[in-house]
Amino acid sequence: MIQPVILCGGAGTRLWPESRGDRAKQFLPLTGEKSLFEQTVQRTPAGPDFLPPVILCGDAHVAVVREQIGAKEASLLVEPMPRNTAAAIALAVAQADADTLLLVMPSDHVIADLPAFHAAIAKGARLAQQDWLVTFGITPDCPETGFGYIAGGAALGDEGFRVDRFIEKPPLADAEAMLAAGGYSWNAGIFLFRAARMRDAMLTHCRAIFEAADKAVAAGMRDGDACHADAIEFEKAPSVSIDYAVMEKDDRVAVVPASMGWSDLGSWQAVHGVGIKDGAGNAVSGDAFLHDCRGNLIRTGGKRVSVVGLSDIAVIVDGDDILVMPLERSQDVRTAAKARE
Amino acid sequence: MIQPVILCGGAGTRLWPESRGDRAKQFLPLTGEKSLFEQTVQRTPAGPDFLPPVILCGDAHVAVVREQIGAKEASLLVEPMPRNTAAAIALAVAQADADTLLLVMPSDHVIADLPAFHAAIAKGARLAQQDWLVTFGITPDCPETGFGYIAGGAALGDEGFRVDRFIEKPPLADAEAMLAAGGYSWNAGIFLFRAARMRDAMLTHCRAIFEAADKAVAAGMRDGDACHADAIEFEKAPSVSIDYAVMEKDDRVAVVPASMGWSDLGSWQAVHGVGIKDGAGNAVSGDAFLHDCRGNLIRTGGKRVSVVGLSDIAVIVDGDDILVMPLERSQDVRTAAKARE
Repeated sequence: MIQPVILCGGAGTRLWPESRGDRAKQFLPLTGEKSLFEQTVQRTPAGPDFLPPVILCGDAHVAVVREQIGAKEASLLVEPMPRNTAAAIALAVAQADADTLLLVMPSDHVIADLPAFHAAIAKGARLAQQDWLVTFGITPDCPETGFGYIAGGAALGDEGFRVDRFIEKPPLADAEAMLAAGGYSWNAGIFLFRAARMRDAMLTHCRAIFEAADKAVAAGMRDGDACHADAIEFEKAPSVSIDYAVMEKDDRVAVVPASMGWSDLGSWQAVHGVGIKDGAGNAVSGDAFLHDCRGNLIRTGGKRVSVVGLSDIAVIVDGDDILVMPLERSQDVRTAAKARE
Repeated sequence: MIQPVILCGGAGTRLWPESRGDRAKQFLPLTGEKSLFEQTVQRTPAGPDFLPPVILCGDAHVAVVREQIGAKEASLLVEPMPRNTAAAIALAVAQADADTLLLVMPSDHVIADLPAFHAAIAKGARLAQQDWLVTFGITPDCPETGFGYIAGGAALGDEGFRVDRFIEKPPLADAEAMLAAGGYSWNAGIFLFRAARMRDAMLTHCRAIFEAADKAVAAGMRDGDACHADAIEFEKAPSVSIDYAVMEKDDRVAVVPASMGWSDLGSWQAVHGVGIKDGAGNAVSGDAFLHDCRGNLIRTGGKRVSVVGLSDIAVIVDGDDILVMPLERSQDVRTAAKARE
């Protein structure tokens, strides 16, 4: 059986002003009517082998998670404080049956090609059954410097490749070299593994994290379909990413390449990239009047936006905040967010 | 005696979205705290020879005119419908004493250098006493194609020059040639003349206009300091500009050159031009956060505007409308205004 584990811990200001404070990116309808979280929940089950998902989230987001799940079957694992992805995944591992395959997914990504995603899961499941820790690698189409990279090694049948090494967010020259060389993929933060295999790996590579999470689940407070991890125990877990705590250290890690229309929507530029566009490349949400405009992202937030003679900019309206910038400056949104919040 | 005649008939969409419908440009605080109309009223009297101003406005603007005049002494001439500047000025002429000098001024311009303006009035008054129809000419500092030009001829003492001819808004090449040649000035629409001299000129050049206005004043309804011109009579006046109806046809027209920090604020670019700017050339009104921005005009309309990495654009917020465009595209604002209103 495969149990989806959906990580909702992030907040993020890269999509300010829409994403801020208690309105985290994953709960916003950034592409179409459904939020990224709702889309993530809908991505599975992909067949009868799938269990209902486990949602990992903070206290502040329990209400919005319940609201957006609606009548779907799911259980919640509530983190009393943020402790990064290794500890969050350890909570899910601690409460899972030994042979359950856990499919860990961020809740704030877009995957446009669902059949490709499900095919990749099927491949990954076969490797996970063989006790590989499986990561899914996105085939790069540009020398992106904002993602980590995975160097693929020996082929593992038709399923994937042994991971030679993980590469942290690279300088542009390195990214260009990897793109040219081939055999590298982006680390999308999607993982698949047998629960007992990950437990053993954590006990080897990051024992303190697993033990804190294990005790936090054991001492946790049950509330219907939710388990609130015990704060005193969970707080002891070091705050480390799963990549750093386990994946980079283990020697039986596989990558399954996947071309599935993936985007992390990590910037307004990325939101424009996946958006539905008019003939001039403008992606518009709301009441916008555009004249002689190309390649813009306009999100009106209920106001009326008029743009004349501008290209490749973002105009994002949210409440009383209006953000205007070139899409290629999307990374600088934090400067504005910091000044405003 | 000199009587200021302030023309408030314009509406204009060139400063949309702030200027629209019943909120005409002249009543907005576009430069500092006072509206352009208030600034125009404050520009005179310039000495003991000045009478209180006559304000020409439409019905819709009587309330805002009264509000902005406050306790100042003034009289109102209310136009029942717009009939362009010749008919409006004819109303003022019809009710004036023969020997009064009428100083006609648009209400939506900026004049930054008041002493220069008052010096020009003094020169113009001497010419008007000699029965010249006087216009004030702005010395051009760029080949502007949005204004009419005045070709100066023979000198009239130290006061000014006989007007050789009026030139309609020229193509760029002609504007450049006039700028290079010198001796040309922009027609700012500010006039000074003896009332009886203009009445005679109107009776010669545009009798129908003057007669309609004269009857409209005679049959007008007095209401305290206001005279509501009679609609049936006034409607008979052809709708023609004073330039076309009189100034271009008369053979005793003088121009007094004036370098007085004049701007017609005819576009957001012009508003930026006269605005107080920070070290990077940004003119900001309201709560704006700018990062790596140069030469922008930001008017927040009570919202919070954040701009990153953009230069020479306008961001104008008014109510639910947000306009974004390069300042050099300011003339295209009508496209947006038309689509929105």
